[in-house]
Amino acid sequence: MDQFRTQPNQSSGAKRAGRHIYDLLRSQIADGTLAAGAQVPSTRDLAADLGVSRTTVTSAYEQLAAEGFLATSVGRVARVASPLAAPAWPDAKPKRRSRTAPTLSDFGRRVAAIEMPGLASAEPCRIDFVYGAVASRDFPALAWRRAYQAELLRHQRSLYYLAPEGDASLRRSLQGYLRRARGLACDTEQILVVHGSQQAIDLCARLLLNPGDAFVFEEPGYLMARRCFEATGAEGLAIPVDAQGLDTAMLPNDDRTRLAYVTPSHQFPLGGVLPIGRRMELLRWARTHRAWVIEDDYDGEFRYGQRPIDALQSIDTDGRVIYVGTFSKALSPQLRLGYLVLPPELVPVFRQAKRLADRHAHVLEQRVLASLIDSGTYERHVRRTRREHERRRAALLDAMARHLPASATVTGTAAGLHVVLWLPFLQPQDEPALVAAVRSNGVGVYAVSPLFAKPQSRTQPRPAGLILGYASLTVEEIDEGMRVLGAVIAERVVKPSVRR
Amino acid sequence: MDQFRTQPNQSSGAKRAGRHIYDLLRSQIADGTLAAGAQVPSTRDLAADLGVSRTTVTSAYEQLAAEGFLATSVGRVARVASPLAAPAWPDAKPKRRSRTAPTLSDFGRRVAAIEMPGLASAEPCRIDFVYGAVASRDFPALAWRRAYQAELLRHQRSLYYLAPEGDASLRRSLQGYLRRARGLACDTEQILVVHGSQQAIDLCARLLLNPGDAFVFEEPGYLMARRCFEATGAEGLAIPVDAQGLDTAMLPNDDRTRLAYVTPSHQFPLGGVLPIGRRMELLRWARTHRAWVIEDDYDGEFRYGQRPIDALQSIDTDGRVIYVGTFSKALSPQLRLGYLVLPPELVPVFRQAKRLADRHAHVLEQRVLASLIDSGTYERHVRRTRREHERRRAALLDAMARHLPASATVTGTAAGLHVVLWLPFLQPQDEPALVAAVRSNGVGVYAVSPLFAKPQSRTQPRPAGLILGYASLTVEEIDEGMRVLGAVIAERVVKPSVRR
Repeated sequence: MDQFRTQPNQSSGAKRAGRHIYDLLRSQIADGTLAAGAQVPSTRDLAADLGVSRTTVTSAYEQLAAEGFLATSVGRVARVASPLAAPAWPDAKPKRRSRTAPTLSDFGRRVAAIEMPGLASAEPCRIDFVYGAVASRDFPALAWRRAYQAELLRHQRSLYYLAPEGDASLRRSLQGYLRRARGLACDTEQILVVHGSQQAIDLCARLLLNPGDAFVFEEPGYLMARRCFEATGAEGLAIPVDAQGLDTAMLPNDDRTRLAYVTPSHQFPLGGVLPIGRRMELLRWARTHRAWVIEDDYDGEFRYGQRPIDALQSIDTDGRVIYVGTFSKALSPQLRLGYLVLPPELVPVFRQAKRLADRHAHVLEQRVLASLIDSGTYERHVRRTRREHERRRAALLDAMARHLPASATVTGTAAGLHVVLWLPFLQPQDEPALVAAVRSNGVGVYAVSPLFAKPQSRTQPRPAGLILGYASLTVEEIDEGMRVLGAVIAERVVKPSVRR
Repeated sequence: MDQFRTQPNQSSGAKRAGRHIYDLLRSQIADGTLAAGAQVPSTRDLAADLGVSRTTVTSAYEQLAAEGFLATSVGRVARVASPLAAPAWPDAKPKRRSRTAPTLSDFGRRVAAIEMPGLASAEPCRIDFVYGAVASRDFPALAWRRAYQAELLRHQRSLYYLAPEGDASLRRSLQGYLRRARGLACDTEQILVVHGSQQAIDLCARLLLNPGDAFVFEEPGYLMARRCFEATGAEGLAIPVDAQGLDTAMLPNDDRTRLAYVTPSHQFPLGGVLPIGRRMELLRWARTHRAWVIEDDYDGEFRYGQRPIDALQSIDTDGRVIYVGTFSKALSPQLRLGYLVLPPELVPVFRQAKRLADRHAHVLEQRVLASLIDSGTYERHVRRTRREHERRRAALLDAMARHLPASATVTGTAAGLHVVLWLPFLQPQDEPALVAAVRSNGVGVYAVSPLFAKPQSRTQPRPAGLILGYASLTVEEIDEGMRVLGAVIAERVVKPSVRR
C-alpha cells in the first residue's frame, strides 16, 4: 500500500497533509465559504497554521490552480477563481436519474426494445445443457500457456495498433487451415479477424442493411443473429427449414431483400445439411438480386461419420458469400475470436468499419492461435475433441432412449454440439413450465420456441421442443440429466402414450 | 501430418482412396459426365474396379449423398441427384469481381467514403514518434505471465459466454481504482468493459446519434473519434480549443446537438486541462439540452508535477457524462481493453448493444487485469512508467532546445505521452514534405493538420505543427530523433530567424 512506502521527494505524511489541504479548500470553495475572488491564506501562513512544510501547501495550491479552482500568479496571494458555475457544489449529492427516457438514436431505441433471451442464470445448475458452452477440461491449457508465454516474450520494438484485418500470421495460418479443413480457397487478404462471430454478424448488419430493407432468415434460426439484423431496422423474412436446411424454393423474388443469413453446413438448430441443389439455388438467387449470403459456419468442424461438408463459399463464383468462422466451439467462447472470409470487393469497407468499431482484435491470443495452427496442435485438438463430442452425443442418445418416452424424437444428430428433442405429447406453450420444473431439479434445458420468429401456426402445428447442448458435460452428467428430464416428464405428463 | 498417421478404423491409404473417389465422382457430376438421375456404379463394382475395399467406396458415396450430390436409398443403386443447378461446375473458376460497386447500407457507403490516416507504414522507421505506441520493455511481462497462467489454470465448470458488462472481478477492481486514481465514485453496475476506447466511442455513436443530428467536437481533436461520429451521418461542429481546452462559451444553443466529445483531463492533442468553470458550463449545457458528454480520459494517469485531475464525471450530478477509460496507454494498445462508466439510465441499452456487437470482451485478460489491480501491481506499474515517461519528456524538451530553432514552441507538456511542436517558420501545407524528409532519414514524425476539421482560416493562421509521441522511445532515441529533425529543418528552411 502506498502510505507505507516513503518516497524520496515527499513523505507519505506530507502527501496526506497535502491531500487534506486540497480537500479542505475545495469543499470551502464549493460550499461558498470561500467565494469567487476571495483570497486564500498565503502558503506561508497556512503552513505555519497547520504545522506542515510550505512545500506541502504550495503543492496543494498548484493542484487546485491546475484544476481551475484557484487563480495564481507569481508573487501574489492566490484567489478563488471566477466565474464558478454551480450555485451549490455537487460533489456530495447522489446522482439522480432523469425523469424521462434517455435520448437515444433510432438504433438505440430499437436495441432498447429488443427482447433477448436471458444469459445462463447467476445460479448455475448442477447439470447444464446450455447450448454454446464447451468443457473447460477440453481446452488445451498446457499448449496454450506455452504458446502465450512465447508470444509474450517475443521481442517487439514497441506496442502499437495493428492493421484492422488482424495479425498477419494468424491470417496466413487460417488460409491453410480453411483449405485443409473446409475446402475453402481464399487469399489471406480476404480474411478479417474479429471479436467472435457475433461481431462478424454485426459488421454485416451495419454495412449491408438499411432500415426498411429485408433479410432472409432461417425459421427456426440463430436468435442472436436475427436480433442483430433486426436492430438495423430491416425486416426479417422467416423462411422455413426442413430436414435439409433452408427451403430455397421460398426465397423472395425481389430486390428489397439484401441478404440471407444461413447455416448450410449444419442448420442451427435443426441440424440439416443444405444439399448441393439448394446451395446452387441460393447462389443463383444472390446473383440475380445482387444480395449477400452470410454463411455462418459455427460448428463446421464437428461432423460425425462423414468428413465435414465443404463451405458454401467454396462454390461461390460471384463473390456473394461472406463466410463466418469462429473459435468459440473448438476452443472457447470466452476467447472472442472469429473471422470473416470476404468477397474481394467487400474487403476495404469491412476493414475500415472494423477499424472504426474497435481498431482490431486483441493481439496476443491471435498469435497464440496462429502458432497452434502452424504446429498442428490445433487440428489435433479438434480431432481429439471431435471424438470426445462423439462419445457425449452417443451417451445422450443412449440416455434419451432409456429415460424418455418412446414418442420423443431427436433431430440434428449428425453434426454439431447440440440436438433438438421433440416431445409430441406436449405443446410449445408447455415448454416454459417443463424447463422450470427440470431446472428446479438442478438440470438446465432450453425451450426451442424462442428460436422461431413466427408463433405456432394452426395449419402446421409443432410439438414442444428442447435444445440440448452437450459439449460441456461428462457422459455421467448427460445420463443423470436425461434421467431427471424423464422423471419430470413422467410426473407431469400422465398419458397412455408415455411408457415407464 | 494426417496422412502419416494410421487410424484404427480406416488406414491412411483407404482415406486417400476415398477422397479420390469422392473427387472423381464430384467432378464427373459437375462436368455432366454423370447427368442428373444417372446411376453411379454399385459400391461392389467400383470397389472391384479400383481394387479398394467396399467400405471405402461406401464411405465416399455417403459423403456425396450427405452433400446432396447423390440420392441413395437402402438396397438400391445410388443415382446422381436432381435437380442440379449450375450448367457448369464452378469449382475451378477464379472468383471474379462484380463490375459495379458493391451494394452497401448508407452506413457502409459513408464508411467506404471516409478518409482515415494511414497506419504506421509497413516499413517501420528507425525511430518512430508515432502517437499511441508504448514501449514493450515497459510492459510488466513477468507479473502478467504469472497472473495469466493462474487464470488459465483456475477451475471453471465450463466455458460459456459472460454477461455483456464484462468480468465481475475486473469491474469491482476498476471501481476501487477509479475512486483512488480518478476521484470517480461509481457503482460496479455502471461499468461496461469493452474492446478498447474505440469501441466505447463507437457504441456511443451508434446509440446516441442519428443521421442529421449534430455533435460537438474539439478543434483540433482526436480523429478516430470524429470519424466514428461522422460515420453515423451526424454533422460535426468543430469548437476551437485554447490553452485550457474546449472553449465552452462557443457551445451551440440548440437541441439538435446530441453530444459533445471532450478530453477534459488533457486535451488531445494540445494538452489543455479544462478548468472548473468550463467544466461546470459544459455540464450545464448538457443538462439544458439533454445532450450527452463523452469524457475520453485516454491518458489521465499520466500527469506530471501535480496528481492527476479528477474526472469530469465525478462532478456530474445529472447523469449526462459518459466516462471512457482505457488500458492502451498504461499497458498496451494491443490488449484492446477499455471501459465505460455510464449514467445509470444508459446502462441497460449499452449492455444490450454490447451483447449484439460482440457478446462481451475477451475474458482471460480481463481477469489478469483484475488480479493485477487487486494486488497493487497495476498502480505500482503506472507509477513506475509515469517516472519513465517523465524522463522521456524531459529528454524530449532538452533535445528540442538543443537541436531545433529557437522559434519552435511546444504545447501540452504537463501531461500525457505526446507533445505538439509548432514551427512558426513553416506553413501547414509544408507539413507533408517535412514529414517525408524526416522519414527518409529513418525518423517518424506526424503532421498536426489532419487533427483539424477545418482548413486553415485566413483570419486565424496557424503555423505548421508536428505531434510527437515519446512513450515508446529511449532517451537516446529521442535525442537522435530531434537531431535528425533539426538537421532536416536547417537544410530546408534557410531563413534569418533560424539559428544553427
